[in-house]
Amino acid sequence: MDTFDVVIIGGGPGGAAAAKELASAGKSVAIIENAHWGGTCLNCGCIPTKMLLGATSCGAQLRAQKRLKTLSGDVAVDYAALQTRIGRFLKGSSQTLAKNLAGLGVTLLEGVGTVLGKGQVSFSAPGETPRTLSCAHIILACGSSSASFPGLTPDHDCVLDSTDLLQIPAIPESLVIVGAGAIGLEMADFFAAMGGKVTVVEAAPHIAPQEDADIAKEMLRAVSKNGIECLEGVKASSLRTVDGHAELTLEDGRVIAAAKALVAVGRTPNTAGLDAEKAGCSLNRRGYVQVNENLEAAPGVYAVGDVNGVTLLAHAAEHQAAYVARRICGREQGAYVPGPVPSCIYGSVELMRVGDTATALLAQGKSVEVSQAPLTINPIAQAYAGTAGMVKAVWSDGKLMGIAAVGHGVSHLVTVAQLLIKEGYTVERLHEIMFAHPTLDEIVPAALRAPRKPVSA
Amino acid sequence: MDTFDVVIIGGGPGGAAAAKELASAGKSVAIIENAHWGGTCLNCGCIPTKMLLGATSCGAQLRAQKRLKTLSGDVAVDYAALQTRIGRFLKGSSQTLAKNLAGLGVTLLEGVGTVLGKGQVSFSAPGETPRTLSCAHIILACGSSSASFPGLTPDHDCVLDSTDLLQIPAIPESLVIVGAGAIGLEMADFFAAMGGKVTVVEAAPHIAPQEDADIAKEMLRAVSKNGIECLEGVKASSLRTVDGHAELTLEDGRVIAAAKALVAVGRTPNTAGLDAEKAGCSLNRRGYVQVNENLEAAPGVYAVGDVNGVTLLAHAAEHQAAYVARRICGREQGAYVPGPVPSCIYGSVELMRVGDTATALLAQGKSVEVSQAPLTINPIAQAYAGTAGMVKAVWSDGKLMGIAAVGHGVSHLVTVAQLLIKEGYTVERLHEIMFAHPTLDEIVPAALRAPRKPVSA
Repeated sequence: MDTFDVVIIGGGPGGAAAAKELASAGKSVAIIENAHWGGTCLNCGCIPTKMLLGATSCGAQLRAQKRLKTLSGDVAVDYAALQTRIGRFLKGSSQTLAKNLAGLGVTLLEGVGTVLGKGQVSFSAPGETPRTLSCAHIILACGSSSASFPGLTPDHDCVLDSTDLLQIPAIPESLVIVGAGAIGLEMADFFAAMGGKVTVVEAAPHIAPQEDADIAKEMLRAVSKNGIECLEGVKASSLRTVDGHAELTLEDGRVIAAAKALVAVGRTPNTAGLDAEKAGCSLNRRGYVQVNENLEAAPGVYAVGDVNGVTLLAHAAEHQAAYVARRICGREQGAYVPGPVPSCIYGSVELMRVGDTATALLAQGKSVEVSQAPLTINPIAQAYAGTAGMVKAVWSDGKLMGIAAVGHGVSHLVTVAQLLIKEGYTVERLHEIMFAHPTLDEIVPAALRAPRKPVSA
Repeated sequence: MDTFDVVIIGGGPGGAAAAKELASAGKSVAIIENAHWGGTCLNCGCIPTKMLLGATSCGAQLRAQKRLKTLSGDVAVDYAALQTRIGRFLKGSSQTLAKNLAGLGVTLLEGVGTVLGKGQVSFSAPGETPRTLSCAHIILACGSSSASFPGLTPDHDCVLDSTDLLQIPAIPESLVIVGAGAIGLEMADFFAAMGGKVTVVEAAPHIAPQEDADIAKEMLRAVSKNGIECLEGVKASSLRTVDGHAELTLEDGRVIAAAKALVAVGRTPNTAGLDAEKAGCSLNRRGYVQVNENLEAAPGVYAVGDVNGVTLLAHAAEHQAAYVARRICGREQGAYVPGPVPSCIYGSVELMRVGDTATALLAQGKSVEVSQAPLTINPIAQAYAGTAGMVKAVWSDGKLMGIAAVGHGVSHLVTVAQLLIKEGYTVERLHEIMFAHPTLDEIVPAALRAPRKPVSA
């Protein structure tokens, strides 16, 4: 029987961050990964999509400057070369991650981990007898997978999940995407830029359903300008492969046919077969491992990242994991504090938010004011011909609670927005910061200083 | 005689910021501008150069992705259309600025302002009898102009200053630039991207002479890759127009001929004929108005921006001006605190720095350590094929004193770097911030967390 201080199930951003921090602090750590080191984010999530969008950004810039008559010409993405480059980069990054962990003394185990009980994990490598690992602490970091619903289940033929779509050998002539969250919108941006006819269907009243309606409306305007058709507030009732193409039937009876379809309706935790309950963990009705304020799922068991359902973002997983590692090392006593959480949707038009939406605050019964500034007033936005969009600040009782933005390159504003919220900046204190001129960043203080208007539910 | 609370001489970033803040606080303000509202920055400095570089950035991205075989094609800048667009944008912005100031009740005076004495300013509009303006406070915000030295004086024929070059009707076949600071390097980047053969000559030991040698070396590598020839540590002895071209003679005897030459050897304050001395101000030997810790040049006279020589950057002028305005309004008692000062050099490869260089700290006799991270490890840098370069943190006695970076898009890191320094972040406290993933921003904490190495003079 192998004994470790900590056994981590899952080698994605959360698991890897915990392993790194714990091993650096001298703990003996085993980490189990059943697919690829780096998890969904690196291998079939955030990173490959950013590589795709990095390649189409040049064409998007060209189109924007062409509208101003300042540029002419044509660019074409070599999709096969891009796929090769991405594959090579992902493989290299995954190997580097594994090598770095091994270099810190972490035991890397490739196979399936399941919970046997408190301090007991079973590890099964393909074709080998399962081993029992004994430990003081278990960290569940096994992530999530693409969700599907009855009638909306990828058949991996013409009805795909995001992993399938990332590996598609050629650009489909037409693509229908169910779900207009980050995954749906980023894929729409790429495949439309590559010449595919893209339709996005969202059941919620607007695309980017986690965002305020005004932000989503600005996003819709930009997405539509890119030739993407968006149907909002429309439920899908069935999606299947018919005669070599995808056929989506909406609840209102409309039928949309496309060469391929993507199901991007959210994520589901990888807890089936994990047996977390054997160590005393509880799953909620959606299958997420429930955690307390210290991210503990049961005595001796922590859950971090997508699997606990708190915040389904790679950087949230890393942040939670680092907290848990410090806690295990005795360097952290208090409850987990995420701080203002950043999120981005990338592409030729981007969306970013840190902290609360007005909608969420109003739902909590709070008073809300908003102030905003349009990108047109920013000289860097003008220089890069990306002037559509805005930055919006959300206030409650005079306190800055959230900053959201839509427009070209606004993902670059995310950490600035976060630090301003985190450090409790007020308009009265903004003068302490000498904002570099000209930068896109200057649009953030402009939004904060703009007149505030009360909003109601 | 006209009486105001404050008379401001100069309608650039400093003057306009002071006028805005003072008028908003209910002060009666007159502002005098002798050229264009918005000053050098808007009309012939930061803004038009960013507009030029915004147009060539698409081609730079294309070249970078072509090297990876992921993109093919060609783009061309329509220089005439770009000039038209820039001219229109600058004119519109200048008019908007003037309109906004007028809307706040500021008296806008177009002509020349000179100091008559304490609380007395003379204003002369072209073709009109000079008027005397009386006021409680004078703010000198009259900026700077391109500097020249004996033998290195623009003749506006083939030997140009930056204002001439911004208005040049066609791209010169070849261009020699004397001075490799921000202006020289940004102009080199644009004109080389437009197909000109560009040579940059710098008298200091390295280009970007204000930066540490390792940062400059990284910049040199990128600039050279763009086909720009840089001669470092070489003094120019004469530069003149000869037979319809520019001829630069170096102190080592070499002669460089080019269609045009740019003199970009710094700035000189606009204090000739200002008569600041009449109100009790002193000029230093380079002509800058000397100020105390409160930015006062004499009782009742403040000097902000380039004219005081403290920090020759548009955003420093704005920051100083806002401080002076608050001081005049009685809302500020203490000495002026700039905080960590940001600066950027823009283009296909960028350079940014906030706070101190290692060189400056060593010169002050301080102990210095540096830590750094290469852009190659950042997935956004990978996605945009901009992996050359690095971020470097400078520490003294365990305190973060400066952050510098070279590479594609690193100007986007400037405010994040500034906030980390300003808020006194240490490596131990970095975990408080959930850095969004994947972002270019993540390279900053990576540089802070990298192993530190002591450096010596």
